[in-house]
Amino acid sequence: MPRILGIDPGSRVTGYGVIDNYAQCSLVTQGTLRLQRNSSLAARLGEIHRGIEGIIEDHRPDEVALERVFVHRNADTALKLGHARGAAITACVLAELTIAEYTPAQIKQSIVGGGRADKQQIGYMVRALLGLRCQPAEDAADALAAALCHAHHKDSPIARAAAGDIR
Amino acid sequence: MPRILGIDPGSRVTGYGVIDNYAQCSLVTQGTLRLQRNSSLAARLGEIHRGIEGIIEDHRPDEVALERVFVHRNADTALKLGHARGAAITACVLAELTIAEYTPAQIKQSIVGGGRADKQQIGYMVRALLGLRCQPAEDAADALAAALCHAHHKDSPIARAAAGDIR
Repeated sequence: MPRILGIDPGSRVTGYGVIDNYAQCSLVTQGTLRLQRNSSLAARLGEIHRGIEGIIEDHRPDEVALERVFVHRNADTALKLGHARGAAITACVLAELTIAEYTPAQIKQSIVGGGRADKQQIGYMVRALLGLRCQPAEDAADALAAALCHAHHKDSPIARAAAGDIR
Repeated sequence: MPRILGIDPGSRVTGYGVIDNYAQCSLVTQGTLRLQRNSSLAARLGEIHRGIEGIIEDHRPDEVALERVFVHRNADTALKLGHARGAAITACVLAELTIAEYTPAQIKQSIVGGGRADKQQIGYMVRALLGLRCQPAEDAADALAAALCHAHHKDSPIARAAAGDIR
């Protein structure tokens, strides 16, 4: 089961990245779904859901990795993020994919070897680990980081716990 | 376009109710989707999405009404509610239904004639307005209240604004 879809859902931009996890990880595709600012909530959630559905249809990942969200500073932001995550996660569930969540610390540890990396470092290391010519957009880099973390952990007890523990 | 689906999404229980809006409103169906406490987030969002999808397939509503959510006390609760709403809303979007949102005050005004009704009053009036033999479960009553509010407002400018204003 070597193909992993990472998703970084957001209410304005949702990043995604698909990698193959053989001896070394390699990029299949990556990008961002940029939602129309002026469209309705329903239309934007439809765009996220259909966008992820399309990526799954085109690239047939075997598993999905997401960053686990912790309590947010702001309840309004948390509600918006929840909407986006709900739309993305249901697309994966309908495709019967296993979904694993990792904490931000697990992802940083896995990508840069420490829990205090900034966005720039994450992007730099995602590029290096996948041998990319240029650095992906921030949201796509975050999605790829989740996918790479899953690739590193997927056969470990931590990943099996994460996969069974998305509550 | 007389058949309205009301939904009250929640992370543990999602209420729904379908009404026909002719000269008088009448009940088509109502109930609750009770989610497995111990299942994963992904599984529960799949249950909500598939549950709403099934209700739409079985009862073919023309429009959907939801209660608008305002900033929550608690960011963690807001995130969970967002997940559930995202799963429910995408099921409606995929079915190409128009979705209108109403504020709690609009719904209370419409059902009991005032903005300060408690849950008990809402349940009582939903039962009376639809001529039901017994009072629906609380979450189903809230879903029916949203549907009734939409029935009362749907041709008014307020409803057209609500339908275009789910942001």
